[in-house]
Amino acid sequence: MFTSNKTQTSINSQKTTLCFSIADKVGALEDCLSAIKATNVSLTRIESRPSQTKDWDYDFFIDLDGVNAIKVKEVVEKLRAHTKDVRVIGAESTNGNVPWFPRKLSDLDSFADKVMEMGEELSSDHPGAKDPVYRARRAEITKIAKTYRTGMAVPEIKYTAEENETWGKVYKHLTAMYPTHACREHLYVFPLLIQNCGYGPDKIPQIEQISRFLKDCTGFTIRPVMGLLSSRDFLNSFAFRVFYSTQYIRHSSKPLYTPEPDCCHELLGHVPLFADPDFADFSQEIGLASLGASDEDISRLATIFWFTVEFGLCRQDGEIRAFGAGLLSSFGELEYCLSGKPEIRPFDPTKTAVQSYPITEFQPVYYVAESFKDAQEKVREFAANMKRPFSVRYNALTQSIEVLDSKEKVVRFARNIRDDMKTLTTVLDSMM
Amino acid sequence: MFTSNKTQTSINSQKTTLCFSIADKVGALEDCLSAIKATNVSLTRIESRPSQTKDWDYDFFIDLDGVNAIKVKEVVEKLRAHTKDVRVIGAESTNGNVPWFPRKLSDLDSFADKVMEMGEELSSDHPGAKDPVYRARRAEITKIAKTYRTGMAVPEIKYTAEENETWGKVYKHLTAMYPTHACREHLYVFPLLIQNCGYGPDKIPQIEQISRFLKDCTGFTIRPVMGLLSSRDFLNSFAFRVFYSTQYIRHSSKPLYTPEPDCCHELLGHVPLFADPDFADFSQEIGLASLGASDEDISRLATIFWFTVEFGLCRQDGEIRAFGAGLLSSFGELEYCLSGKPEIRPFDPTKTAVQSYPITEFQPVYYVAESFKDAQEKVREFAANMKRPFSVRYNALTQSIEVLDSKEKVVRFARNIRDDMKTLTTVLDSMM
Amino acid sequence: MFTSNKTQTSINSQKTTLCFSIADKVGALEDCLSAIKATNVSLTRIESRPSQTKDWDYDFFIDLDGVNAIKVKEVVEKLRAHTKDVRVIGAESTNGNVPWFPRKLSDLDSFADKVMEMGEELSSDHPGAKDPVYRARRAEITKIAKTYRTGMAVPEIKYTAEENETWGKVYKHLTAMYPTHACREHLYVFPLLIQNCGYGPDKIPQIEQISRFLKDCTGFTIRPVMGLLSSRDFLNSFAFRVFYSTQYIRHSSKPLYTPEPDCCHELLGHVPLFADPDFADFSQEIGLASLGASDEDISRLATIFWFTVEFGLCRQDGEIRAFGAGLLSSFGELEYCLSGKPEIRPFDPTKTAVQSYPITEFQPVYYVAESFKDAQEKVREFAANMKRPFSVRYNALTQSIEVLDSKEKVVRFARNIRDDMKTLTTVLDSMM
Amino acid sequence: MFTSNKTQTSINSQKTTLCFSIADKVGALEDCLSAIKATNVSLTRIESRPSQTKDWDYDFFIDLDGVNAIKVKEVVEKLRAHTKDVRVIGAESTNGNVPWFPRKLSDLDSFADKVMEMGEELSSDHPGAKDPVYRARRAEITKIAKTYRTGMAVPEIKYTAEENETWGKVYKHLTAMYPTHACREHLYVFPLLIQNCGYGPDKIPQIEQISRFLKDCTGFTIRPVMGLLSSRDFLNSFAFRVFYSTQYIRHSSKPLYTPEPDCCHELLGHVPLFADPDFADFSQEIGLASLGASDEDISRLATIFWFTVEFGLCRQDGEIRAFGAGLLSSFGELEYCLSGKPEIRPFDPTKTAVQSYPITEFQPVYYVAESFKDAQEKVREFAANMKRPFSVRYNALTQSIEVLDSKEKVVRFARNIRDDMKTLTTVLDSMM
Repeated sequence: MFTSNKTQTSINSQKTTLCFSIADKVGALEDCLSAIKATNVSLTRIESRPSQTKDWDYDFFIDLDGVNAIKVKEVVEKLRAHTKDVRVIGAESTNGNVPWFPRKLSDLDSFADKVMEMGEELSSDHPGAKDPVYRARRAEITKIAKTYRTGMAVPEIKYTAEENETWGKVYKHLTAMYPTHACREHLYVFPLLIQNCGYGPDKIPQIEQISRFLKDCTGFTIRPVMGLLSSRDFLNSFAFRVFYSTQYIRHSSKPLYTPEPDCCHELLGHVPLFADPDFADFSQEIGLASLGASDEDISRLATIFWFTVEFGLCRQDGEIRAFGAGLLSSFGELEYCLSGKPEIRPFDPTKTAVQSYPITEFQPVYYVAESFKDAQEKVREFAANMKRPFSVRYNALTQSIEVLDSKEKVVRFARNIRDDMKTLTTVLDSMM
Repeated sequence: MFTSNKTQTSINSQKTTLCFSIADKVGALEDCLSAIKATNVSLTRIESRPSQTKDWDYDFFIDLDGVNAIKVKEVVEKLRAHTKDVRVIGAESTNGNVPWFPRKLSDLDSFADKVMEMGEELSSDHPGAKDPVYRARRAEITKIAKTYRTGMAVPEIKYTAEENETWGKVYKHLTAMYPTHACREHLYVFPLLIQNCGYGPDKIPQIEQISRFLKDCTGFTIRPVMGLLSSRDFLNSFAFRVFYSTQYIRHSSKPLYTPEPDCCHELLGHVPLFADPDFADFSQEIGLASLGASDEDISRLATIFWFTVEFGLCRQDGEIRAFGAGLLSSFGELEYCLSGKPEIRPFDPTKTAVQSYPITEFQPVYYVAESFKDAQEKVREFAANMKRPFSVRYNALTQSIEVLDSKEKVVRFARNIRDDMKTLTTVLDSMM
Repeated sequence: MFTSNKTQTSINSQKTTLCFSIADKVGALEDCLSAIKATNVSLTRIESRPSQTKDWDYDFFIDLDGVNAIKVKEVVEKLRAHTKDVRVIGAESTNGNVPWFPRKLSDLDSFADKVMEMGEELSSDHPGAKDPVYRARRAEITKIAKTYRTGMAVPEIKYTAEENETWGKVYKHLTAMYPTHACREHLYVFPLLIQNCGYGPDKIPQIEQISRFLKDCTGFTIRPVMGLLSSRDFLNSFAFRVFYSTQYIRHSSKPLYTPEPDCCHELLGHVPLFADPDFADFSQEIGLASLGASDEDISRLATIFWFTVEFGLCRQDGEIRAFGAGLLSSFGELEYCLSGKPEIRPFDPTKTAVQSYPITEFQPVYYVAESFKDAQEKVREFAANMKRPFSVRYNALTQSIEVLDSKEKVVRFARNIRDDMKTLTTVLDSMM
Repeated sequence: MFTSNKTQTSINSQKTTLCFSIADKVGALEDCLSAIKATNVSLTRIESRPSQTKDWDYDFFIDLDGVNAIKVKEVVEKLRAHTKDVRVIGAESTNGNVPWFPRKLSDLDSFADKVMEMGEELSSDHPGAKDPVYRARRAEITKIAKTYRTGMAVPEIKYTAEENETWGKVYKHLTAMYPTHACREHLYVFPLLIQNCGYGPDKIPQIEQISRFLKDCTGFTIRPVMGLLSSRDFLNSFAFRVFYSTQYIRHSSKPLYTPEPDCCHELLGHVPLFADPDFADFSQEIGLASLGASDEDISRLATIFWFTVEFGLCRQDGEIRAFGAGLLSSFGELEYCLSGKPEIRPFDPTKTAVQSYPITEFQPVYYVAESFKDAQEKVREFAANMKRPFSVRYNALTQSIEVLDSKEKVVRFARNIRDDMKTLTTVLDSMM
């Protein structure tokens, strides 16, 4: 999937999470829960957890959906009687607030039906806009995305012969161009997708199979999506190594054209790269930078994403090659971008982030990464300068984001590094 | 669940995994797959993956079930024509071999129906041995474990009123003793289990809910199991932060007695501790040490497990408290172990590992850990001296075990540490 | 050199260091210097340095010798007008104070003439007590120590034929015993001392040559000393990898006996071990723990020192061997300690630290270290529990002690580790 | 001091060091020494040391001066009888050899009288070329440099009234310009030099005092030098944080002009920056990269040095400021470089390293560093790509260069990092 520059306004703004810690006295947990319930606000989640902020306190997390600022304030007041510290995430009206962002994998479930453009409401210039059968099929497929939740296997879709045929045409055209146009990593992974995930010209591969393969390679997983997510939601998901993929395919009347991402774009353009460890690290770095970022920074990161993950070039063995999914899924632009005609500049986040770009025609300028590692390093530095008032890391064990805002978390993090150093030292000692 | 000293012989010995890397030439993947298929051996898995051993090679993993050593040798010969290096894991007859061990989370699926003692075949001294209704109920519940696979939600069990009543009796008795006998961590987590996981005297909590809670806390998850696993399989699962739990309950005729683990033991004894980060680290350390260990070392580690996770004591604020699940789920022994009568020794893996113990009566000797961190450190040192010919680490992103046996993996590991150090430095710089 | 339990009272108590930081405004340095001078107190050092506590401030260090508490307080008051923060180190009367400790290598110069027992004032039981020639010779030699300052080469001593003969007798006796009694590290280094530092039966080696050799091996250096230092001063010097050595030799009438350390003890007992990297680390660990420690902790550390560096045994290849200098320089006790007669216990700082010991007869109990690394680790843990209100590290580049008490220093330390990790990663990448 | 592009040919080529390890059998050290002596070659150093390459072996280091390749080969043959591995460093004729480089601090002593242009042989355009009194004075001063050896204090020079007057003129002119032209770090350190090192308009400060101050700040020390060193020698010294400084001053007839570095250039231009930790790190990074580098790489590094340490600009608070010593010691160029007339480019080692430059007129192009840390990072990457067949690190404890070419050294390095991580974790735990 890709996002465009018109999609930067978050529509998650109504979502609010309250986090607070309570003192450990007998019954405190119970008292607090009663207080919360007494507010009569509609809560989509109440969780108490071991505290990460101070020994022997508990942490509470409460999600409020569609609640206005006045109501949030009221709830906060009530809670203050039972706790010393209430942090509000995502309430618009509260000054100086951090925009809401997902903290654990299942928080991504709230993105399921929040799309900027629905997969079934086609724009008028869409080749399938006037085909009721095509539109009905889209609705059928996007229903899967709507009901998908964390932990579920992505249901298999029985693609029609017509759909598979469209896929086959795209597949044959593009795979013929890859050896001379695609980057090394794409070429390397492709045969594995054929052997392990059912890639081939005859039928559209299934997301579940691919997602399991990527999980083994880099920890990436794929979730179905109804249509275009906001930039914020889409980028946020990368912090968890989650990629939102459409499952429907373009209209059969124009197999070589689509005005929006479809499964050809996702599976041929994006998927191979997510199997590469360095690219996976790079993508997650953008995702981590986007958590709780300001709208301006989201816009900058989305632009960086556009010029790398979607339209990026890289230098390999003295040649320029394509790694952006938007290029690797478009015959015309894949040829054009390496033709010597467009302008080529070195990837530099500070400059790339403010470059304007068209979304309906070929790019006039492309950015070249030296390597995915180098690009990751540059994005990391760029993010460090965004001066978000907190630092985050992804805890893969708990599949959650740790906000490193307390002594205990930082010390635990330092201990992890120390323990890893112990392991490394032991390994070096035994193997070298 | 717990294992005992009679269960150390692995019954997974028929399982064999072949790992090999192939050179990257056009069609090599295809050629190799054909060669494997031509062997006519029954394969339960064929996977090709990006190689972790050298740039531009691919890795193959093949699982053979119930194949004898001669057949394995034959397959290996065939493969040698296409690859330089075939490693065999778990084939008994091959000299100098490493016992089979799970490499990825889904490898644990093979444990599902390999139990030493089946949950439905009760020993003659079991209070429910002659109760056909009880036995049928056991069979019904263990079927869930038999069909459970990685990624599935653990199905909810509708417990009967009689079952819930038995649970209630045990629950009330034990929770009355905890404030004066259980360790700090157990007492701390228990209210959270009440609030978030349905703990209480009225009904047996559901594993799925608990598993999600533990995942948030420490990354531990719970899987259903039919009965007693071999020590090797049981310990191996801890390397993945997976705990195998029974779901059935003791016979209602003797609510305060059971000759085998049941859900009271698992949910009241084990579960609270797995929510503690240091205890989780400690448990995983034993699990990691058990991967590919010799039968003798498995026996030693199982004994260490016995005297810690099952029957461990710890010193806290000058008092001795219980953290072993076997103690925390037994009225009699929980009182006895802190009565001053049994012998108390400091936990020391080299000594603890060779201590003999009875499994049908109270322990004559208990070991006291200074802290879970200290115990983990000691187990780590113990494991380092086991001199396994390889080192492992758990990759939480891919939920797989990395055998650190190649330059590339070690360098990638070192890079991870370096990148973590960068993050830590940035965090310290911004927050202190 | 060694220290004994009667020497724990620091006689450095009159020394006081004031540290303070000033704000960076034009002329601030100058103003502050004037204020200091206006106090009319005798200052032995005034240094201003780039601040390590906050950007764009300066740090001042002032040493006051022999100034009473009232005067110190007066100076502090004066300074408060120009600065926000004055820390006093070593003034006795100020409550809650940290005892004075050396911060940079040249601070050790103040130890030069502060000895508990002077090398020239012999006790009545000393074999040379009534020999005026011997006493004059001692005075001549100790004068070197008195005038030695940081950075100077240790002057060569022209030993007399009689002195060299005494040395020869001791040398022959002891070196005959080493192959069966000394630890591996001692045996390994000894031939290098013969080849590079003039060791041999014919003449007493020169400290300067040995010091240069040790500097190459582990960074240890040797300084001459007049006699017995206080435990505090002596241990403090190890934080800088400095060893204080006597240069005089026992009385020729009793070559196999001395009631105090002499050059035979230092050069045959101590020196070889300081060439071993792990032993050097271990020794420095004790030194670092002693900086600013309370008198009680100094006493504990001195006892640990006694039972390791002076009288330690270790286990090597299944045998017990001696590494303590007090053993390796005494025929009688070297034989006795391995005879099976005395009690042997495993080294455990918490217990060893409170063991009483005689200083004029053979030890009734010895402690056995598993390895120097293991002993270092144990001392490190012991020190962490001493709960000094600050942490220190030795900065070898500036040959100074860094008190890690500010954000900037901790961040800089973290950056060093990160940079080292970068180097290590690069090395692994290129060499493995 | 500075070096220019005509000085890149090493004149140390006659120096050869043989390193070899011997097996530990009784008398091996002795046998080997005899074999070396039997070669009748003039040796300037024979050292045996504890081996860093494998347990229980010893390392030998032999320096041969002015010995031709045939003779070296002969010695190597002789040694092969006693050892398995002889490495030759610096012998020109041996193929594939690494150019000689200093391994320990005292190796720098060999640079003392190897200068490209002698301080006393003035070029014809030197204002003092025809002044015999000035030339005699130069000879007198450079004699100090010639006899200086590691560990000595730099002798004080009694400057004449005329010399001090010349210094005063330069001092007053330049210090008037610094507030508006010099970088932050220079301005910050300068008052400390006035207060601690005798800086001021009245007399030339003494190197010894400055060297001690720098040692405290960053570990840098200053050594006297006779004249221009080769680029290789000069850069190599920075690996040890050693700066070679002239002590003589320009001719009094032209106080504002000098065709070569003199003490005004060193003390006003270079010294203040070496007190800054980040600049010190940056300088050492270049030094480390230069050890054993090819002549081509030395040339590149010397050019990088030229455009940074000598003529570098940096961006600070939105302004461009000068940090290069060549600028900070030249009225004309200091004004010119910030005038907006010359070309300004971002510092990029790959490009900067191949930029040609004039040495007798103002630079047409200057490079701007973002920060010293950033510049260090870039040089580190540049050096990593030089693909020297080995990695080095500076061991500040032993003041020597470790070539990380063996398992043991890498493991020891990893252990150091692990131990540092332990310290950091303890610090964070106690202080945050």
